[in-house]
Amino acid sequence: MDEIITLDYGSGGKKTSRLIEKLIVPRFANEALKSLGDGAVIPGGEELAFSTDSFVVDPLFFPGGSIGKLAVCGTVNDVAMCGAVPMYLSCSLIIEEGLPLEMLERVLDAMGKAAADAGVQIVTGDTKVVERGRGDKLYINTSGIGRMKHRLPGLTAVKPGDAVLVSGAVGDHGTAVMLARSGMMQGDIRSDCAALNRLTEAMLSHCGSIRILRDPTRGGLATTLNEFAEGQPFGIELDEQAIPVHDAVRAACGMLGLEPLYCANEGKLVCLCAPEDAEGLLAVMRALPEGAEAAVIGRVTQEAAGKVVMRTGLGGRRILQKLAGAQLPRIC
Amino acid sequence: MDEIITLDYGSGGKKTSRLIEKLIVPRFANEALKSLGDGAVIPGGEELAFSTDSFVVDPLFFPGGSIGKLAVCGTVNDVAMCGAVPMYLSCSLIIEEGLPLEMLERVLDAMGKAAADAGVQIVTGDTKVVERGRGDKLYINTSGIGRMKHRLPGLTAVKPGDAVLVSGAVGDHGTAVMLARSGMMQGDIRSDCAALNRLTEAMLSHCGSIRILRDPTRGGLATTLNEFAEGQPFGIELDEQAIPVHDAVRAACGMLGLEPLYCANEGKLVCLCAPEDAEGLLAVMRALPEGAEAAVIGRVTQEAAGKVVMRTGLGGRRILQKLAGAQLPRIC
Repeated sequence: MDEIITLDYGSGGKKTSRLIEKLIVPRFANEALKSLGDGAVIPGGEELAFSTDSFVVDPLFFPGGSIGKLAVCGTVNDVAMCGAVPMYLSCSLIIEEGLPLEMLERVLDAMGKAAADAGVQIVTGDTKVVERGRGDKLYINTSGIGRMKHRLPGLTAVKPGDAVLVSGAVGDHGTAVMLARSGMMQGDIRSDCAALNRLTEAMLSHCGSIRILRDPTRGGLATTLNEFAEGQPFGIELDEQAIPVHDAVRAACGMLGLEPLYCANEGKLVCLCAPEDAEGLLAVMRALPEGAEAAVIGRVTQEAAGKVVMRTGLGGRRILQKLAGAQLPRIC
Repeated sequence: MDEIITLDYGSGGKKTSRLIEKLIVPRFANEALKSLGDGAVIPGGEELAFSTDSFVVDPLFFPGGSIGKLAVCGTVNDVAMCGAVPMYLSCSLIIEEGLPLEMLERVLDAMGKAAADAGVQIVTGDTKVVERGRGDKLYINTSGIGRMKHRLPGLTAVKPGDAVLVSGAVGDHGTAVMLARSGMMQGDIRSDCAALNRLTEAMLSHCGSIRILRDPTRGGLATTLNEFAEGQPFGIELDEQAIPVHDAVRAACGMLGLEPLYCANEGKLVCLCAPEDAEGLLAVMRALPEGAEAAVIGRVTQEAAGKVVMRTGLGGRRILQKLAGAQLPRIC
């Protein structure tokens, strides 16, 4: 094979076949993929969760992850947040002409490993190549299917008094990517990119009062909580001091002019549940590495309906808005 | 809303929400999509077919279709070729900063219409925006899920003597796109872009001996048939004069230096079946508009194993290779 990807690799002809058969299939090896038909035939079952995400992160590699790991974990997490068990992923590549093959191989390796770690199979895919200057090295779309296991009631079940939990420190992914992009020193800051399906399974098996799960990716924790509260007959009050943020992230955010609450996370979830279950759920979360730094960070209120209010360390209150503009383009 | 897409629309914040809620959801209206969770919850059932495709066609609009119609029909067809009934699609957009909103709306309209026509629902999605010069107006990924209805035996069931059928004239899509790109007169040439799930359903309900179905997209009919024969203990012999090609396509291909057998199709399928069933199947295909020009174009042979051989009008024979390079980049 050539050392860089040329337009020929996107033609659907010999080079496309070689790319798929030599580079891709061996890394994602499974029965459904092997047939290389137009699609994969997979066992069905109960109700399904179905999700999709395109990943355009820049740079492709950053401390703690890569576009490949992100593409697997991101879609696994979206499926898991539905209360489903992620089972199957698709993988579609849009490659910019000129991409070094070695870079593609590293990304595919990361995808294979992340899929194996998360216990999902990549069963179908597609490869396109676009001309130089019509992409940016590599974009990846993954779509995911999971078996519904725990039907979550969603926002309509939320009641004043409900607890707001986060599974760990926020802002790591966004900050790590921004530092990598700026070429600044990273220090200890690594993306939190991780699959959360084992965590959600443990949480949902243990606690029957979980109303909703969501992974606060683009737009960060503040935006996700605003999506919860928007147009609802309840508000969300956060305790600023209870929100876990790593010191290094706080410092880097200060330097970069970012706000950790608006920075993307790729291995964290937010959860609303009945107040009496919060402590027990917290213990379950903390028992897993993905939830080791979990915390109760606030509660659902009758007041300030539709809004997210932050109680600051000094006893003040301020409204947390949804992210308005492009604080961090190409973060995932 | 603004008249062009800015990076803000990809931030995950307010503008992203507005884009999704105002532009996208109304066009794809269905229950599963409305909840706007991380994924859609959809009813499961039997065995499933799962497929994905990213569409990078240039230009976005061409006679007979658009990237939007293509993105729906392409994935519907991939699912249908598995012998499944396409049910649900995802839609993920990678938008280049600066795309006129009006253009995006037309594409989304085309997707909504194509989905309704094909009887599928777009239930989940994603939107990313990349900087100017890092994309080309719009790339779309669709993934599709279908319920397996007719399990096809595949290439292992193919026997010498089997008939090779095509559902209509080949080369229309590739030629239409190349003409649109070159700015040349189109004449009567239109992309054949169409959903084939009604055709496959009719064929599979009628005929029990269908070995395999495939839509000859990138690389065209010649490449698909080579994929069938490659490494198999049989060959495929085609009768050049039996292969339907529209006169205008033949003429335009001559002018552009293309070969219709290598030009992408987006509304055609190839099928192998028992010879005694070929005529009956042909009648079923011709009864539907998508199969009006269907034809038996060749047969499976014991000789020339692994190869596709063309019997020419003059009685000669030549080997049809797989597409080697990038005859037509960005065709789908």
